Amino acid sequence: MPYNEAVDPQAVADMLKKHPEISVVSVCHHDTPSGTINPINEIGALVAAHGAYLIVDAVSSFGGMDTHPEDCRADIYVTGPGKCLGAPPGLTLLGVSDRAWEKMKANPAAPRASVLSILDWEHAWSREKTFPSTPLLADVNGLDAALDLYLAEGPEKVWARHDLTARATRAGIKAMGLSLWPAREAIASPTATAVRTPAGLDEKALRQAARERYGVVFSGGRGATDGKLTRIGHMGPTAQPIYAVAALTAFAGALRALGHEAEAGKAVEAAMDVIEAAG
Amino acid sequence: MPYNEAVDPQAVADMLKKHPEISVVSVCHHDTPSGTINPINEIGALVAAHGAYLIVDAVSSFGGMDTHPEDCRADIYVTGPGKCLGAPPGLTLLGVSDRAWEKMKANPAAPRASVLSILDWEHAWSREKTFPSTPLLADVNGLDAALDLYLAEGPEKVWARHDLTARATRAGIKAMGLSLWPAREAIASPTATAVRTPAGLDEKALRQAARERYGVVFSGGRGATDGKLTRIGHMGPTAQPIYAVAALTAFAGALRALGHEAEAGKAVEAAMDVIEAAG
Amino acid sequence: MPYNEAVDPQAVADMLKKHPEISVVSVCHHDTPSGTINPINEIGALVAAHGAYLIVDAVSSFGGMDTHPEDCRADIYVTGPGKCLGAPPGLTLLGVSDRAWEKMKANPAAPRASVLSILDWEHAWSREKTFPSTPLLADVNGLDAALDLYLAEGPEKVWARHDLTARATRAGIKAMGLSLWPAREAIASPTATAVRTPAGLDEKALRQAARERYGVVFSGGRGATDGKLTRIGHMGPTAQPIYAVAALTAFAGALRALGHEAEAGKAVEAAMDVIEAAG
Amino acid sequence: MPYNEAVDPQAVADMLKKHPEISVVSVCHHDTPSGTINPINEIGALVAAHGAYLIVDAVSSFGGMDTHPEDCRADIYVTGPGKCLGAPPGLTLLGVSDRAWEKMKANPAAPRASVLSILDWEHAWSREKTFPSTPLLADVNGLDAALDLYLAEGPEKVWARHDLTARATRAGIKAMGLSLWPAREAIASPTATAVRTPAGLDEKALRQAARERYGVVFSGGRGATDGKLTRIGHMGPTAQPIYAVAALTAFAGALRALGHEAEAGKAVEAAMDVIEAAG
Repeated sequence: MPYNEAVDPQAVADMLKKHPEISVVSVCHHDTPSGTINPINEIGALVAAHGAYLIVDAVSSFGGMDTHPEDCRADIYVTGPGKCLGAPPGLTLLGVSDRAWEKMKANPAAPRASVLSILDWEHAWSREKTFPSTPLLADVNGLDAALDLYLAEGPEKVWARHDLTARATRAGIKAMGLSLWPAREAIASPTATAVRTPAGLDEKALRQAARERYGVVFSGGRGATDGKLTRIGHMGPTAQPIYAVAALTAFAGALRALGHEAEAGKAVEAAMDVIEAAG
Repeated sequence: MPYNEAVDPQAVADMLKKHPEISVVSVCHHDTPSGTINPINEIGALVAAHGAYLIVDAVSSFGGMDTHPEDCRADIYVTGPGKCLGAPPGLTLLGVSDRAWEKMKANPAAPRASVLSILDWEHAWSREKTFPSTPLLADVNGLDAALDLYLAEGPEKVWARHDLTARATRAGIKAMGLSLWPAREAIASPTATAVRTPAGLDEKALRQAARERYGVVFSGGRGATDGKLTRIGHMGPTAQPIYAVAALTAFAGALRALGHEAEAGKAVEAAMDVIEAAG
Repeated sequence: MPYNEAVDPQAVADMLKKHPEISVVSVCHHDTPSGTINPINEIGALVAAHGAYLIVDAVSSFGGMDTHPEDCRADIYVTGPGKCLGAPPGLTLLGVSDRAWEKMKANPAAPRASVLSILDWEHAWSREKTFPSTPLLADVNGLDAALDLYLAEGPEKVWARHDLTARATRAGIKAMGLSLWPAREAIASPTATAVRTPAGLDEKALRQAARERYGVVFSGGRGATDGKLTRIGHMGPTAQPIYAVAALTAFAGALRALGHEAEAGKAVEAAMDVIEAAG
Repeated sequence: MPYNEAVDPQAVADMLKKHPEISVVSVCHHDTPSGTINPINEIGALVAAHGAYLIVDAVSSFGGMDTHPEDCRADIYVTGPGKCLGAPPGLTLLGVSDRAWEKMKANPAAPRASVLSILDWEHAWSREKTFPSTPLLADVNGLDAALDLYLAEGPEKVWARHDLTARATRAGIKAMGLSLWPAREAIASPTATAVRTPAGLDEKALRQAARERYGVVFSGGRGATDGKLTRIGHMGPTAQPIYAVAALTAFAGALRALGHEAEAGKAVEAAMDVIEAAG
């Protein structure tokens, strides 16, 4: 599978059929380094039918789009507070299914009284129980405050904010004559936008120029995609249309600083068309 | 003097000549509600020659441009931490000349042991002395941290940041076909930009649209200028070119939301030209 | 009236009778520098019958004992967040009666648009209205959090905590062979305990020894009582019986460091008797 | 070895002689659940002579007494910020010897790019390098501030503070007629004091009474020592003589609340004798 594509559920079905012994399937929801979204609900249905356990990495998607452990039938669903929820980083949030708890409890080799243990945390959500280790109070309080804000705004509104910001960003990028990294817009993430590096451009120099001249920080690719794409994050508090405008301007300005042409005005107008259509 | 003009030093000279009994002159440096800068150094020289005391309100200019109590020969020079210094609001910062201290000490009617007293604070800068009232610790610590940042960046760089942001904002406003409120660009403030309200526009509705649609907060006029102008602040942490772009986009978007035309793209391109010329 | 006595309501009645022209009466509830409580409810009834306005300073009593603007019929009732409420200092809290609002509104000379103005703040409590000046956000948030704690614990419990801590402190001081400054225990404050300086003792040296050796900070007298008494504060978060023990030990330890005898053990036992009797 | 004794270096020497194949030795410096200190410097010398690697758990001793990785020749020396350094909990601090780095680098099975990896953190101390995972900023800043305070006070003074508080606590406990848990005072920890549960006492009820009546929190034993001892912590900011007094009073008060006799006065006097002897 190329790095700009999403996982094909048919390929998962084929693999499971070919290997009936598969007992655990692991999938990343938002593939952050490429800005693509994998169809975890479809994959989850296949895995459940097969009888295997499903582990989902939803670190940079949960809170920024409509995704839940139940919808993808995840047994272990991992997310973090520092991405779309806008809380401080440091903690890990886990959704664990009933059958996953049973499986771990029945397994004498499952880590216990260890930093690797999930079992230790089974009752940590309860006001009556203590944490298995000394809690990082500032992080817990930060998460608590972030969840209050998330619930007060309403999940649907938060997801819509992420989606609108992503669509405005993509419209601007295309209006500037650039290409998105994801093979199809349907798989482009609502929480980060990956832009294909134009021919002849030093991608690291682009990010440095955006940071120095406009104070805007982009990310690069990782491993096989290093140098091939630039990522614009729009998660949590930065999932606001005005940040799309700031990012597009900084992107254009950085290109121009490196001697490339980039019509910032057209990009901003295209982003505004999307924003205005949303009312 | 119309509200879009600066104080004319010649008018001050004439007034002092006509009224030799004048003993105190008070002047506002940055007239925040109209976004204009008064020539306090020239006025200060005239007042000093006359022998009067000079009180300067530099609340929204100090820290954002090259101004000092000594340069304008101020006897009382007032500023605040919450504007260009980017600290929390709440405290007042005062520069007091030697002759002002002497004058107040010799005056038995000068407030003492009172919230109105300046004398109580003479030694409050000293590590060895206590404050005359219980200090607002969070505000003092916030100011301390903000001054560390100000000095680490270097005053000249901070002033240049404010100036560049103001010039980019003004260029964008003009490119959008709007007019600046100040009569001449030479008197336009580097810390806030006042825009003349276009004919037929409900200024309050403009600000509301910018806030709701783009999350950007502008200010209006005050008193005689209410409804006649909109102010874009760029002080302290918002004195960054990328904030000029955000403000211009929000301004254009708000105009369009109210049925007016506004070429956001042209505005952003004009702002970028200024930013790029600064290197 | 000696500095260790409370205001006698009969003296107030006599003065009002002798001077029917008196239109404003001002009284301090807890006279902090002497640790005594004045009978403001009785005084307030006399002032109301006379038809004068009553101003009450309840800065260091409100929140630490059962006192309210209505009970003493105050027209202006002043308190602060940094004492018994345990919030950060910096703000002032005012209770204003309906007739005081009317009086000020009818007075063209009452300060308006000024740091001295009370009228400016009439509607500041409303979520719909802005503050008359830029708010000190950290202080407002601190007060908000402190009030949440105060209400969650319950005012009656908070007052009982202050009372118990004060009684334990007084019992310990007397058991140590020292004298309270207030002429009678009935007028001793529940929020601070003033101790008469023993003959031959350098009161400043006592406070310095307590601070250096035990890290406990006491206050001295003011003006006429300077050197004559030492004050042990027990307001807000320090209004806990264990702080009475810490204060008594530090007091005894400081006395001993200066060559005086002081039976710390007896003092602690006496304080514990009070604490244990409260259950 | 009974739970109230320290590790005997001779026993370590015997074991190493008997088992020349031992390649790693692990030792806990301050055995927190029993309040005893193990002789890690002596043990470290034996382990070094043997040629094995030494892992030291100094979580609740480092910063509170004179102990360093070099002195005990530790290869891995683990401590935490939330104990004697008085910083927020959450981070782990590691001292790693040169030979330990070499050993891990040469080991292809040593964890890498993992939450279990030590190698990932080799250069994390450098201002030029990034952390291997997103840092918990509040915790890092809290540690930074705590280390500033530690160094400003001076390590020797901090250790002396812990020692004095511990000695005052022990003197008070003995004066009250209670017994220390450690077999000999020479092995009692300067950072926590373990008290043997008197016959007929419900240890949990004791801790509950201290918390409810005096707001003082003690800890119990763990595993084999559960119910047999009560621990009084005096680490970091609570390593102050006045906290010894508060702890002793709360201990005595809790005993009395449960119907046991306890002479709080004698305990406080004994603690003060120790404090006063230290000047």
